[in-house]
Amino acid sequence: MFKKILIANRGEIALRVIRTCKEMGISTVAVYSTADKDSLHVRFADEAVCIGPAKSSESYLNIPNIIAAAEITNADAIHPGYGFLSENAKFSKICQENNIKFIGASPEMIDAMGDKASAKETMIKAGVPVVPGSPGLLKDLADAKAIAKKIKYPVMMKATAGGGGKGMRVIWKEEEMEAAWESARQESAAAFGNDGMYMEKFIEEPRHIEIQIAGDGKDACHLSERDCSIQRRHQKLVEETPSPFMTPELRKKMGEAAIKAAVAVKYEGVGTVEFLVDKNRDFYFMEMNTRIQVEHTITEEVINFDLIKEQIKLAWGDKISGKNYEPQMHAIQCRINAEDPFNDFRPSPGKITTYHEPGGHGIRIDTHVYASYVIPPYYDSMIAKLITVAQTREEAITKMERALSEYIIEGVKSTIPFHVQLMKDKKFREGDFTTKFMETFKLKEI
Amino acid sequence: MFKKILIANRGEIALRVIRTCKEMGISTVAVYSTADKDSLHVRFADEAVCIGPAKSSESYLNIPNIIAAAEITNADAIHPGYGFLSENAKFSKICQENNIKFIGASPEMIDAMGDKASAKETMIKAGVPVVPGSPGLLKDLADAKAIAKKIKYPVMMKATAGGGGKGMRVIWKEEEMEAAWESARQESAAAFGNDGMYMEKFIEEPRHIEIQIAGDGKDACHLSERDCSIQRRHQKLVEETPSPFMTPELRKKMGEAAIKAAVAVKYEGVGTVEFLVDKNRDFYFMEMNTRIQVEHTITEEVINFDLIKEQIKLAWGDKISGKNYEPQMHAIQCRINAEDPFNDFRPSPGKITTYHEPGGHGIRIDTHVYASYVIPPYYDSMIAKLITVAQTREEAITKMERALSEYIIEGVKSTIPFHVQLMKDKKFREGDFTTKFMETFKLKEI
Repeated sequence: MFKKILIANRGEIALRVIRTCKEMGISTVAVYSTADKDSLHVRFADEAVCIGPAKSSESYLNIPNIIAAAEITNADAIHPGYGFLSENAKFSKICQENNIKFIGASPEMIDAMGDKASAKETMIKAGVPVVPGSPGLLKDLADAKAIAKKIKYPVMMKATAGGGGKGMRVIWKEEEMEAAWESARQESAAAFGNDGMYMEKFIEEPRHIEIQIAGDGKDACHLSERDCSIQRRHQKLVEETPSPFMTPELRKKMGEAAIKAAVAVKYEGVGTVEFLVDKNRDFYFMEMNTRIQVEHTITEEVINFDLIKEQIKLAWGDKISGKNYEPQMHAIQCRINAEDPFNDFRPSPGKITTYHEPGGHGIRIDTHVYASYVIPPYYDSMIAKLITVAQTREEAITKMERALSEYIIEGVKSTIPFHVQLMKDKKFREGDFTTKFMETFKLKEI
Repeated sequence: MFKKILIANRGEIALRVIRTCKEMGISTVAVYSTADKDSLHVRFADEAVCIGPAKSSESYLNIPNIIAAAEITNADAIHPGYGFLSENAKFSKICQENNIKFIGASPEMIDAMGDKASAKETMIKAGVPVVPGSPGLLKDLADAKAIAKKIKYPVMMKATAGGGGKGMRVIWKEEEMEAAWESARQESAAAFGNDGMYMEKFIEEPRHIEIQIAGDGKDACHLSERDCSIQRRHQKLVEETPSPFMTPELRKKMGEAAIKAAVAVKYEGVGTVEFLVDKNRDFYFMEMNTRIQVEHTITEEVINFDLIKEQIKLAWGDKISGKNYEPQMHAIQCRINAEDPFNDFRPSPGKITTYHEPGGHGIRIDTHVYASYVIPPYYDSMIAKLITVAQTREEAITKMERALSEYIIEGVKSTIPFHVQLMKDKKFREGDFTTKFMETFKLKEI
């Protein structure tokens, strides 16, 4: 097994990786920017190397400094966490060239999955459903009608130069097509000086449901799903497993599709295949994340094993068990961020003056903060991941309400009041939500 | 269901009960002594009533004040926690007389199980094995020999007036009996002016293994065992489940015996049947605890449900499921006390100046303390219960080592350094320990 792993990250995920390494008997090297010198990941690692100033581009994204830190400390592997260099093909390649095992995807795989068009191509070949659409630009109205008929209404027409909803139309039936075609092209020409249009199937009531997978370069298995539909501007706020929308049949189908995706690219390590699921429970490949995710925690709680440990073992060359895992319990995660939910979730860095965590049965907290910790303004605003686990979804929600009521964070604003209101929301409690949920969710001033 | 429960306790268990009540939608009333006014159980309860000064006898043991607090707040039930009034038959009776449901045993049951001789009698009738011995005092040497032959060597002769090991002899075979009989009687006469002797089977390499049970007054089920052999002067320090000494056959037999015990006394609620288990895996009833125990937490972690919730539901009149539970995982609990392990575990009350808890996968903490909390000198010295849960015993121990290494408590001495050394101990890691373990365990000065 690896003797020493350098963690090329900060915050809770750096600490998370250190914890597993300790439990596996692997030495750890933390790297840190000058802004993070008082961080717990620095304190709890066996060694720590300062790699630059606060600015990410000069520290956590500074490849030469990170490689140098690995070399002077004799680390034989690098764990990149999530974000920063975790899906950077160049970094993966440089690790390889320096004989340091990158605990993540190969440069080729990162490139293949990072480019959306080529990823979609690969998935189509592997038999994984993708959002159907026009192969390229629409030639004319007849072409638009023919394609819409093929991929089935409703469809969405999009301006190739588009953005901000301009030149975009949802078309529910053929009779609407002509008017839409004309008006969208005019709008696009006026806005962007380009009236090129393409078409995609319109996903009704989309949910973001992702499948956790593990692969050993040959075989892959799935570790069930996570529902991440509660998101704001593509930032996930709350995750849960199982998805309240899931059925055993759909899990089987999505699990099989995710395994196909992983096997097609000879995936090695743990990863996530993200899908959109529509109201008819048809699902479509969105993208593949070739790294550990923030929300891996809830999967751990319901399948009872350590995904980072699994990831490290797979990087070492271990084989997967081949068993697919079903959730045994229900887990929910609230991301507690230093943001002001009453002020458009604006970041609220600064010193945490009082800090008290909830505890007891079915509560997990992953955090790097403590009382008197100063949240620097340079990085993401995550304070903690608060996870509850219980036998049923309702119990997990009730437990979350209880835990939130005990969580005391003073000195900075946090998203706790948002989560408190979300947990009481009727639609949320009924599991009746899509990725559009936050567009209409109204936070009450308190 | 109950509308409002008063918790007649303090510290972590008061908070533990409040948490479950919140999750069940039941209002809570905390009671507190003047020494506990800044306690979290006071802060997190819906209402709080001061019931007297610091001294337990005038507050947490003050029955009239507690009943008055229940009446002025309109509580319809009282949860006594553990210790204090939890096994006080008079309190249980007064609750009954005041139409307040006592969430614990009836006065008759507390009396029946509190008196060791009558409890033993009941268990013999129910067919539960007890430590065999002489019915009363030994008449003469011949009587001693006859009884020893019947209950099988080794046996232990004990002075009826004894204490501190005086007048006590372990006898391994009949040839040793005469000399032991003479010398023990002489020693006892000299020490206590009384040479009365009785005899019990000597339990070789005893382990303290207890079975958690739940009963509804008619039927009972068991929720598997806890090994509490690591204890010092009858104070448990570390508990785990499953017991490393357990076999499926023994669990079945002990589970059945515990159910027999519960059914024999028509047990209602959750309780524990404590056994001694010898090196041959023969087991003997010790006592029955008619209350929730400190170490109920580890059972919750391996069977995935909330025992306090179960207890409240049974007190309300719900029936048990009838299913016996087997551990699905391995859980260990270290009691983190404000005591100096390098100074004979002397209590170390005072102000906690720095407080930082470990977190992450497989960690549970039950505590009522926080940074700047002052541990009063009047009550027990528990700071927190630190629980780890993992797929195997070895992983749970390794996780405990990791968690202990992250636990920062400054301002008072704690038992953390003891637990750190215990977790590294070869015998402990091999599961090779008895209730005598702590008599020879040597703490290294650091």
